[in-house]
Amino acid sequence: MKKELCSVAKNFTFSIDVDKKLALFDISGSIAHVQMLVKQKIIKNHDGKKIISGLKKIRDEIRNNSFVFKENDEDIHTAIERRLNELVGSVAGKMHTARSRNDQVVLDEKLYLKNVMPEIENAISSLQSVLVDKADAYFDICIPEFTHFQPAQPVLFSHHLLAFVEMFERDKQRIQDCLKRVDICPLGACACAGTSFPVDPEFVAQKLTFQQVFRNSIDAVSDRDFILETLAVNAMLMLHLSRMAEELIIWHNPLIGFVELPDEFCTGSSIMPQKKNPDVLELIRGKTSTIIGNLTGMFTLIKALPLSYNRDLQEDKRFLFESCEISHLSLILMAEIMKGTKINREKMENACHYGYIEATDIAEFLSGKGIPFRQAHHIVAKIVGFACEKGVRLFELKDTELKKLGIDDDTINFIKNLDVHKSIHLKRSPGSTGIKQVKEEVKRWKNILK
Amino acid sequence: MKKELCSVAKNFTFSIDVDKKLALFDISGSIAHVQMLVKQKIIKNHDGKKIISGLKKIRDEIRNNSFVFKENDEDIHTAIERRLNELVGSVAGKMHTARSRNDQVVLDEKLYLKNVMPEIENAISSLQSVLVDKADAYFDICIPEFTHFQPAQPVLFSHHLLAFVEMFERDKQRIQDCLKRVDICPLGACACAGTSFPVDPEFVAQKLTFQQVFRNSIDAVSDRDFILETLAVNAMLMLHLSRMAEELIIWHNPLIGFVELPDEFCTGSSIMPQKKNPDVLELIRGKTSTIIGNLTGMFTLIKALPLSYNRDLQEDKRFLFESCEISHLSLILMAEIMKGTKINREKMENACHYGYIEATDIAEFLSGKGIPFRQAHHIVAKIVGFACEKGVRLFELKDTELKKLGIDDDTINFIKNLDVHKSIHLKRSPGSTGIKQVKEEVKRWKNILK
Amino acid sequence: MKKELCSVAKNFTFSIDVDKKLALFDISGSIAHVQMLVKQKIIKNHDGKKIISGLKKIRDEIRNNSFVFKENDEDIHTAIERRLNELVGSVAGKMHTARSRNDQVVLDEKLYLKNVMPEIENAISSLQSVLVDKADAYFDICIPEFTHFQPAQPVLFSHHLLAFVEMFERDKQRIQDCLKRVDICPLGACACAGTSFPVDPEFVAQKLTFQQVFRNSIDAVSDRDFILETLAVNAMLMLHLSRMAEELIIWHNPLIGFVELPDEFCTGSSIMPQKKNPDVLELIRGKTSTIIGNLTGMFTLIKALPLSYNRDLQEDKRFLFESCEISHLSLILMAEIMKGTKINREKMENACHYGYIEATDIAEFLSGKGIPFRQAHHIVAKIVGFACEKGVRLFELKDTELKKLGIDDDTINFIKNLDVHKSIHLKRSPGSTGIKQVKEEVKRWKNILK
Amino acid sequence: MKKELCSVAKNFTFSIDVDKKLALFDISGSIAHVQMLVKQKIIKNHDGKKIISGLKKIRDEIRNNSFVFKENDEDIHTAIERRLNELVGSVAGKMHTARSRNDQVVLDEKLYLKNVMPEIENAISSLQSVLVDKADAYFDICIPEFTHFQPAQPVLFSHHLLAFVEMFERDKQRIQDCLKRVDICPLGACACAGTSFPVDPEFVAQKLTFQQVFRNSIDAVSDRDFILETLAVNAMLMLHLSRMAEELIIWHNPLIGFVELPDEFCTGSSIMPQKKNPDVLELIRGKTSTIIGNLTGMFTLIKALPLSYNRDLQEDKRFLFESCEISHLSLILMAEIMKGTKINREKMENACHYGYIEATDIAEFLSGKGIPFRQAHHIVAKIVGFACEKGVRLFELKDTELKKLGIDDDTINFIKNLDVHKSIHLKRSPGSTGIKQVKEEVKRWKNILK
Repeated sequence: MKKELCSVAKNFTFSIDVDKKLALFDISGSIAHVQMLVKQKIIKNHDGKKIISGLKKIRDEIRNNSFVFKENDEDIHTAIERRLNELVGSVAGKMHTARSRNDQVVLDEKLYLKNVMPEIENAISSLQSVLVDKADAYFDICIPEFTHFQPAQPVLFSHHLLAFVEMFERDKQRIQDCLKRVDICPLGACACAGTSFPVDPEFVAQKLTFQQVFRNSIDAVSDRDFILETLAVNAMLMLHLSRMAEELIIWHNPLIGFVELPDEFCTGSSIMPQKKNPDVLELIRGKTSTIIGNLTGMFTLIKALPLSYNRDLQEDKRFLFESCEISHLSLILMAEIMKGTKINREKMENACHYGYIEATDIAEFLSGKGIPFRQAHHIVAKIVGFACEKGVRLFELKDTELKKLGIDDDTINFIKNLDVHKSIHLKRSPGSTGIKQVKEEVKRWKNILK
Repeated sequence: MKKELCSVAKNFTFSIDVDKKLALFDISGSIAHVQMLVKQKIIKNHDGKKIISGLKKIRDEIRNNSFVFKENDEDIHTAIERRLNELVGSVAGKMHTARSRNDQVVLDEKLYLKNVMPEIENAISSLQSVLVDKADAYFDICIPEFTHFQPAQPVLFSHHLLAFVEMFERDKQRIQDCLKRVDICPLGACACAGTSFPVDPEFVAQKLTFQQVFRNSIDAVSDRDFILETLAVNAMLMLHLSRMAEELIIWHNPLIGFVELPDEFCTGSSIMPQKKNPDVLELIRGKTSTIIGNLTGMFTLIKALPLSYNRDLQEDKRFLFESCEISHLSLILMAEIMKGTKINREKMENACHYGYIEATDIAEFLSGKGIPFRQAHHIVAKIVGFACEKGVRLFELKDTELKKLGIDDDTINFIKNLDVHKSIHLKRSPGSTGIKQVKEEVKRWKNILK
Repeated sequence: MKKELCSVAKNFTFSIDVDKKLALFDISGSIAHVQMLVKQKIIKNHDGKKIISGLKKIRDEIRNNSFVFKENDEDIHTAIERRLNELVGSVAGKMHTARSRNDQVVLDEKLYLKNVMPEIENAISSLQSVLVDKADAYFDICIPEFTHFQPAQPVLFSHHLLAFVEMFERDKQRIQDCLKRVDICPLGACACAGTSFPVDPEFVAQKLTFQQVFRNSIDAVSDRDFILETLAVNAMLMLHLSRMAEELIIWHNPLIGFVELPDEFCTGSSIMPQKKNPDVLELIRGKTSTIIGNLTGMFTLIKALPLSYNRDLQEDKRFLFESCEISHLSLILMAEIMKGTKINREKMENACHYGYIEATDIAEFLSGKGIPFRQAHHIVAKIVGFACEKGVRLFELKDTELKKLGIDDDTINFIKNLDVHKSIHLKRSPGSTGIKQVKEEVKRWKNILK
Repeated sequence: MKKELCSVAKNFTFSIDVDKKLALFDISGSIAHVQMLVKQKIIKNHDGKKIISGLKKIRDEIRNNSFVFKENDEDIHTAIERRLNELVGSVAGKMHTARSRNDQVVLDEKLYLKNVMPEIENAISSLQSVLVDKADAYFDICIPEFTHFQPAQPVLFSHHLLAFVEMFERDKQRIQDCLKRVDICPLGACACAGTSFPVDPEFVAQKLTFQQVFRNSIDAVSDRDFILETLAVNAMLMLHLSRMAEELIIWHNPLIGFVELPDEFCTGSSIMPQKKNPDVLELIRGKTSTIIGNLTGMFTLIKALPLSYNRDLQEDKRFLFESCEISHLSLILMAEIMKGTKINREKMENACHYGYIEATDIAEFLSGKGIPFRQAHHIVAKIVGFACEKGVRLFELKDTELKKLGIDDDTINFIKNLDVHKSIHLKRSPGSTGIKQVKEEVKRWKNILK
């Protein structure tokens, strides 16, 4: 018999603080398992009934927060079994027939994911809806799109918002793909070898709405791909949120002033009363680092682990829960922030006056006349250089000045009539920032998301 | 006009050493783009012909290694355009009409992936075949399956090998899922806003066998999800190879001796002539760290980048190429190593005599008689403890000794007849290490992989 | 006035659950700060007395766990200030004169580190002592030292243990180096610009036993180098523990059997009663991944943050506390485990019979006779190859056999008398596994650590 | 005899492309080693002379790029030994007496670091000098210091620059600390056990200017702490450069316009002729991710490796070289960029008019009059709120308006005379942005760096 684990070791090894989140999933899994044991005549009907009624009582206790954890509850599985023993006596010991913690914990984690990932997907859709509504409401505002964080070309603000809608759509696809591999029930793999009991894994899988059943008992208890994949999917989602946060933080700076963030998601300063700090957005960006760190940690954890179960795997739950919770909360918060953000049309459109961002249109105009693009590029560079030196915008250049630079009348006319709205009106390629193209996209997304 | 970048800056910013791998993909993309420009009458037919013939000549030069890179070739795109200029003159400048390096580079990377990922998938299948053949050839060998790196239960060696086949099957699924998002053609997004030229992105996409066309020009040039996803997929694949490598390295140690690795993938020592070091396997395990580092690096790169294109993104190619090449080579090498590995049946089966790994079967036997599993567990613990103290195996215990421990005749009989092969024969659950179950799995995999 | 942060945002932004660990350090810092304010006549003496007596009362509440956190306590600083207000009224508001949360939080973190890092250092010394005692107690046992996880050369087990003692000594040096940069007091930097109050940062620094005072207020609130450095130092320490854990886990496997781990740090299996799993060691190894993930996360967090304070930095505390706590606990546990580990001399020495690990000695013997080392290497390779084929050990080869391989009498004599103990006795280079060398090292370490 | 490694394996395992950077260090190490062998009479004097003259010839070949690598040169050590054999015949084989690649490669890496890290330190000092000169030249410009990327308080631009000088000073300290642990010579550890030859490691260490000699042969060949530490130190340095790059990129955006970056470190756009992209800075920021990825990779590599040498360690060189080269180049480039950057005083000072950044000074003024800081905070918040609503700056508020808000004459007078320069003049705390304080710091740094 093992001596008591010393108390430091307990502190180090017990996972109950983390895995108590699995309580309800653990109970659902156990009920299905016991139903199967009964059906397969592995345990008696009346034993099964007793166990299940005990489990249901525990479920109630957990739901109404009356479940009391005890000092020796190492993890959620032992806590529930301990309580079951108190409630129904030694028959509780039959629940664990033909099951091991090795397959049980994988089941719990998968049930958790089957529950939480669709919620995350919904939260993505809600954020997308907010973005599409915003794009609709501020459809025709122009902003300078940056490349290299330098003003590059005028685009519709709505087009910029829809770029994020596209990103988030991929996140939803990835969640769907990932769930295919979550949706394989591991129960019946036992410790690693399967069992001599005539279990029916298909029955359990159906009860718990799994699409498939594991094929190899060693793989079933060793595999944490589904967690690695979830962490990677969530990390990509957080990257998108982080990029959006970064832009909003910059736009909220009064020197830029494109947006004003909603008060309820900002905080003041303890020493600077005038400030309105974008704390929630900063934390979304900051917690993205945590999520990346967790992803790294999880990969490092698995690297070079021999099969089958190793206790190292216990650390996966901390990574998993944090990743799902931060992603979920960040989505909810971002949707609210975006909803409450005030758009400053004037600042956005004024910003288009910096950096000669309509220059590309002149180059395209020249190319359209048959001048090789590289040569057109050089001509426009001359014009811009001249305007820059004079400190005027392109349409302010005089005909005589442009003629001296060798520009023909046709092109001079084009330049004199060019402004950012004109620039956008010129765009007509599929997927471009053209008025018609973006309008259709807004409509398409509204249909998809309704 | 910009001054020359100083030479240190060149060294720092030029990507030609890395992205020259994209040469052929860049040319394919350019040819399709020029064909579209001609079809849409954006450039003249004879100009298009000249450009395409020049591009084909360059393709030949690259294929037969006669292409000469020049000192100012910043990246592969400029190198090819520079050469095109030499070959066909200033008409070369028309190739870049309605295109930017921002959409061009994404196209090249996606063409690269559409090419290399199926090769990786094939290499996975080859490795799976080797594993299945090995499982077939050594079908009935027993090994002690470890949990916590302690002998836990006897399983068929073939069952253990098939666990890896399952893992690799998931890798193939993930590659397929990832390719869906690679398979979206970005050409036509230009710098970020689309273009005023009447381009036909669908045409280009079809020419280059893409399934879909981008929907939002800003997203098209900002998005690197497809690279993040590839890196994550490859990193999971490498984890599987790393776990396999770890096991083979341990098994090859003469104290364990389960396997003998093939000479041609081992090296000797400069000072210890007798050694046969598993260098290739160690490097597969070691390079898995490199791949995890690259994954981390890529996530860190994207975090908090504002839209749309930023030069930081240049670093993605280094991560991408290394990830794909290491994964591909590792798979090829692992298949060869596995093929040439000698299996030591005797050592494997002798190893089953350590650790009382048949104890679980006794617990299951007792449970089958109605004793709650937890109680059965305590009874078996007593038996094992007694045998351990005496230093004998379980079937060597005397009837009288077992009786003194309170064991009934039926169970005594069970124990006396229990050995590792019996243990495996008892297993009958789906996905278990049972003879019938594993045999069917070998057959199933042979069908899938043939 | 700001609207209330919505409750989800609260959940997301509040750090009280994490930073409550800083409570006592926060109070110490505040007391010193208030003492300075009084000394500098920035606040009145009797106001200072009131505040300090309030702070001491709060300190007592925290120490005896009677401090009650309230729903709106965002972080530990606001919790304490809120409580101070309850205790001493509005004069509490003077405590924050010439201070900001920006410099306050850095102070708290540094005080935490000045407290915890020396404890970690002590725990390292304790582990080193256990290792040295073990080396002393089992001084003369031989084990096969592995390179490439293949038996390479016989060494003293004690020599192997002392390798870890060396590693841990470097960890202690790194902690000392890191503390130099922790030991710079940031108080007085305020939000970022310093203050118009005539504060005396030197006084505060001395009260709190800091060696130095910050030099630049912007740097003082932006800098998190000291946390990055701590995380890196702790991660290296964990790598050492992880390598030791890996070896012990392998050695504890009955097929190797070099050691038997103490029961109280192992656990059994719920389904396999005979097992003794090295769970604590597995978790030390597993949590090393968590620590590496945290290190990555912290680096990612800081990358590309503009100066000065950004809310992202809040995430640093989670990384910091976890890193210090896991390192500290792991050290304590490893020392206990090592202390209780039983050494199996027989298995270790028997293991030396595998792999012809005395071959290098023959090569050195031949070189000593003037044969170039590379040639000696080839000769020995022949001998080993022959012995291997015959399945005998080197000293079992017959004279006639060796002569046929072209070996001279002198060398034959050397080979016939060679065994692992002899091999070790031959070593005489400084730092080698020679008897005399290792004995001296044991003595040296005993002196250092006593 | 081993069969030839198949060609794919070669490609996978050969490190020559990476480790050829070690060539000159390898030769220096070998010369010192051979001198020791001669001194200790382990090899004959004339043999030693031959070998050394051969090594010197190879050194010349490498220096003038005439050394020819051959197809079977696995790594730099074998390449040099192969060439030595060609030059001096089989006596070359004596060079490897009492040495293994295991200690040799550690020596080479340490010699590399002893060479490159001081160069990096010098590059840091050069950058610091540029920063201090800039701080001196633009001493009195005010900028809004950001916290949460919101304008917080006015500071001197020079004070902001000196914050970076502080950061870089810590980097130099860390390099010094790290070099202490690099500076331990590993030669003589051989494969892992030491040797029977009467070697003199002290002699070799002195020849190669090492401060210390290894103490434990197993540790000497297993240890890669010095590389982990270098990577961590370089990664922190890169974080500082990345933060500086981030700020410059933002400042260079014309909407902010604080600075104009030098043309020679910017590039244009292929499609947007007017742009001046901060590519080098973006790449410094981007490559910081690469460096973080390498750090992660290296930690992952070592985690759970058993002692002593494992081939996985080969990957360390790739991490090491890249980390040192990128850090070094980034420093050189940043110094040049900073030197050439034009400062826009007008834009910086105008930016101080946003965000009521002088509000803190009013709060401090009120506190100075005995009002608790928290209460002062509320009063100022009222004033700022009123001014914000009216759209005026604080000093523009009318006496009557301020009186209505309950402000006394004294404070009204203070407010009417408050502007950003006044704000800075008010600061007088050590380390603050006060004129006197910053002036002294500039002087101090000039002294340190001259």
